Amino acid sequence: MTKPTLILIDCTDALGLVALISNIIASHKLNIVAMREFVDEDANKFFARIVCHGDLLDQQSLEKDLQALLPSAATILVNPTQKKRLVVLVTKEHHCLADILVRDNFETLGAEVSAVIGNYQDLAPFTEKFGIPFHHISHIEKSKEDFEQEIIQQIDAYQPDYIILAKYMRILSPAFVAHFKGKIINIHHSFLPAFIGANPYKQAHTRGVKIIGATAHFVTDDLDEGPIITQDVRRVNHTFTVKDMVTAGKEVEKAVLSKALQFVIEDRVLIHGNRTIVFE
Amino acid sequence: MTKPTLILIDCTDALGLVALISNIIASHKLNIVAMREFVDEDANKFFARIVCHGDLLDQQSLEKDLQALLPSAATILVNPTQKKRLVVLVTKEHHCLADILVRDNFETLGAEVSAVIGNYQDLAPFTEKFGIPFHHISHIEKSKEDFEQEIIQQIDAYQPDYIILAKYMRILSPAFVAHFKGKIINIHHSFLPAFIGANPYKQAHTRGVKIIGATAHFVTDDLDEGPIITQDVRRVNHTFTVKDMVTAGKEVEKAVLSKALQFVIEDRVLIHGNRTIVFE
Amino acid sequence: MTKPTLILIDCTDALGLVALISNIIASHKLNIVAMREFVDEDANKFFARIVCHGDLLDQQSLEKDLQALLPSAATILVNPTQKKRLVVLVTKEHHCLADILVRDNFETLGAEVSAVIGNYQDLAPFTEKFGIPFHHISHIEKSKEDFEQEIIQQIDAYQPDYIILAKYMRILSPAFVAHFKGKIINIHHSFLPAFIGANPYKQAHTRGVKIIGATAHFVTDDLDEGPIITQDVRRVNHTFTVKDMVTAGKEVEKAVLSKALQFVIEDRVLIHGNRTIVFE
Amino acid sequence: MTKPTLILIDCTDALGLVALISNIIASHKLNIVAMREFVDEDANKFFARIVCHGDLLDQQSLEKDLQALLPSAATILVNPTQKKRLVVLVTKEHHCLADILVRDNFETLGAEVSAVIGNYQDLAPFTEKFGIPFHHISHIEKSKEDFEQEIIQQIDAYQPDYIILAKYMRILSPAFVAHFKGKIINIHHSFLPAFIGANPYKQAHTRGVKIIGATAHFVTDDLDEGPIITQDVRRVNHTFTVKDMVTAGKEVEKAVLSKALQFVIEDRVLIHGNRTIVFE
Repeated sequence: MTKPTLILIDCTDALGLVALISNIIASHKLNIVAMREFVDEDANKFFARIVCHGDLLDQQSLEKDLQALLPSAATILVNPTQKKRLVVLVTKEHHCLADILVRDNFETLGAEVSAVIGNYQDLAPFTEKFGIPFHHISHIEKSKEDFEQEIIQQIDAYQPDYIILAKYMRILSPAFVAHFKGKIINIHHSFLPAFIGANPYKQAHTRGVKIIGATAHFVTDDLDEGPIITQDVRRVNHTFTVKDMVTAGKEVEKAVLSKALQFVIEDRVLIHGNRTIVFE
Repeated sequence: MTKPTLILIDCTDALGLVALISNIIASHKLNIVAMREFVDEDANKFFARIVCHGDLLDQQSLEKDLQALLPSAATILVNPTQKKRLVVLVTKEHHCLADILVRDNFETLGAEVSAVIGNYQDLAPFTEKFGIPFHHISHIEKSKEDFEQEIIQQIDAYQPDYIILAKYMRILSPAFVAHFKGKIINIHHSFLPAFIGANPYKQAHTRGVKIIGATAHFVTDDLDEGPIITQDVRRVNHTFTVKDMVTAGKEVEKAVLSKALQFVIEDRVLIHGNRTIVFE
Repeated sequence: MTKPTLILIDCTDALGLVALISNIIASHKLNIVAMREFVDEDANKFFARIVCHGDLLDQQSLEKDLQALLPSAATILVNPTQKKRLVVLVTKEHHCLADILVRDNFETLGAEVSAVIGNYQDLAPFTEKFGIPFHHISHIEKSKEDFEQEIIQQIDAYQPDYIILAKYMRILSPAFVAHFKGKIINIHHSFLPAFIGANPYKQAHTRGVKIIGATAHFVTDDLDEGPIITQDVRRVNHTFTVKDMVTAGKEVEKAVLSKALQFVIEDRVLIHGNRTIVFE
Repeated sequence: MTKPTLILIDCTDALGLVALISNIIASHKLNIVAMREFVDEDANKFFARIVCHGDLLDQQSLEKDLQALLPSAATILVNPTQKKRLVVLVTKEHHCLADILVRDNFETLGAEVSAVIGNYQDLAPFTEKFGIPFHHISHIEKSKEDFEQEIIQQIDAYQPDYIILAKYMRILSPAFVAHFKGKIINIHHSFLPAFIGANPYKQAHTRGVKIIGATAHFVTDDLDEGPIITQDVRRVNHTFTVKDMVTAGKEVEKAVLSKALQFVIEDRVLIHGNRTIVFE
């Protein structure tokens, strides 16, 4: 069987859009095997994810046909045949990186890790075990601007589809974020919007919460305020010290980032203002 | 705003079905705001749930147009305007019944409870608090056939859409099940297929499981083997006696049956052989 | 078998406390069948919950023996033989109240509901179905002080062990809270500390969260800042409107308050500053 | 601060046991900071896990004092100072092994992996990246007895505390199990006791379940019937193929085995007939 054709659409809503789109798909002799569609009527926006079987003879022609009929400013993604490429940014904590590199190693990630960049060297030996390049770019004794410029150049050398902040502990400048608009994914060590900012587990312990969580989100200029992709939680109790919470938190951080990457890599996520549409 | 039009389709798959269907919908000036479609290619079956906004001027004409174009044997359900009616069967345990009657009382069930039938009288006073008729039909000193015939007659008097076994503890005969084919929903007190049959909590305790569950399913001739609608679980531990497991189990039974009813009442469930398609 | 003897202790920590306590228990011919002990070394505090089997011949003597040997300011609770009494405060929403009244009706609550007080009359008919007194005390055209004074008098007439705010939507004054110190339990419609204050589901929708939650906590002077008893969450997604979130939220609110009441009624909760020790 | 002293006790129940034990602990100048005790009255068995702070001057004397006073046949474990050693058995699937080796590499496992033994060579390169010896012992063209004898000899060379079956797909003989009684931990790819035996995900797909799970348990002679340590689940739906269920299942298998290892390594698990006491 040939690979399924995937069509992602994000455009202004209009009457008869599903008919228009499905007619074009039928005219290309593709059979729709799974379709998810969502309209936000307040925003007048249309979102769809369509999986088709059948031989796609001419991808460009399908895209052109869709583009011609859909409302202006439609974003259409047909059948991404190339594996997505990721660059991972880290500081010192290994748990999220290790999860990604193991999946990459056994080819269960669905994407390729092009490189890892760290502002400390701690994770270089581990990364290199897997044959992945590790670039150490220190922030020490540099202006933030110079430091970020070095990282941007290094990332750009790989032309990645996404930049993954896998417990990267430096705040990004608006210029950095703008350069990779919609492409940066962060794992935040709390159940946002609870405990924004530093030391969330210390805050959680002081507040005596009974559940902790983690949040994977796209990065925008507002720290910890970008569109949320997915979240999850773990129960804690009065016997947990701050250190125990950090340990439990790492498990949920790892699981949440992994789930978010799966959604993004499988083209299940569309950004809609400060929210996301996730066609699970 | 007028009520949304809901279209449920279950038919043989064919190339271009989504186009056919959405063209018909567009020709009736309806806008598709949420669509879920699923094709089982092994079984060559097509399932869809479509929510439309706009004024549906002629429901019969829409149904006729769909029927004319879809493959033979298509099941099409358009815009059920009447509230569904439920008859609830009980024995002695109150927890599932109480949940249903409270929702009915405050009109958050999305359906109407027409009557409750019990093979014991225990739950009559509670049911009658809510102004719902309670029919006591005892199984004692009757043949199973006579007993079930009495129940069938009582149920038929209400012409319900669904019969809910809310901890009804008598096994139904194939004749009874056939009479209400696809309309009987049961809550089973275990995480099927574990612990089929009687005393599942006793079995679970003996086995030393760490999680218990419950399963809501359509009833077929095979006891505990009908299509599963939804399931859920709760953690237990070594301190739980059988009685504690029963108590914890009642909470999950109640929650699972409530969820299953919501799915069925909102027309989100399609039966597909011994499985269900649930468009959550 | 006689009823188990339950001993709850909250005191300053000291070397050998478990030995002291268990010697006294043994001298009263009781067998410890389940013991949970927790020491907060930073705070130098000792907490224990001990379940004993055997005939407790002289409860007062056991209490006296414990009091004599334990550090000053010890709180000791032995074998509460009387069922706890609850007064429930409501406004207009029924879901938490209904859950409590159904459990009370079938004697699965482990406590007794003495009365319900509402600042609106909406829930009077439902409450009275269960034979529970409903007192309507309106806040309209009264000073907050007068209004609360009326409620306090009505509550005091029942001498309840706990006051349950089951979606009671008025903010309590410090004087009110002080009058019932450590006895008021609230269900907050968010996963605290996220979305403190009003309209949490509106806030949650705008923020695009993928999980919503609820929190049961003791009430202190700081609104929404008292010791958390338990929390739970439900998944939501991009298809949820604010109204859908409110509906999903009610399910989790009901479940969380029910769980918190169970913990409190079974004497599993000790307050420790702004946190709780919960011996689940 | 010195390392806490951990005391695990498993013996016949008797009146005053907690007093006896805590007196001995106090006489050694240790302060009990966390205690969990459980009595199974039907079985007349006593279980406790006690964490103490303070300088343990003479471990042997503490053990001797406890042994002298406790009922015969008591199992007492005081303060295991040596890190536990694990040998991991694998076949071809990497997900559980990788999780264990990453934790071992970053010293977050709380134990040491001494070696990995595989009946295929597939996982040798991965294992060796981490500097852990990999022994390939093929079952091909050998009697089961000879094959297992080779493995036993290899395991015995490491004198491990536990043997972890991390997706090891050969059934063990009673002789093998007897040789490592109470020391073998398996991850079973289903929510036991559902879907015992082979191809559980195929069975789960056919049955149309809405939740799948995994179970970590001690291995006894009855295949898939040993004492359960922990279990967990993941939701699935009608869109999951058998392959999707296998993929989702691997995530839960990995998480469950990891949790079980943590419990065992931290000495939180006591075997009680075919059940476990887990002092979480």
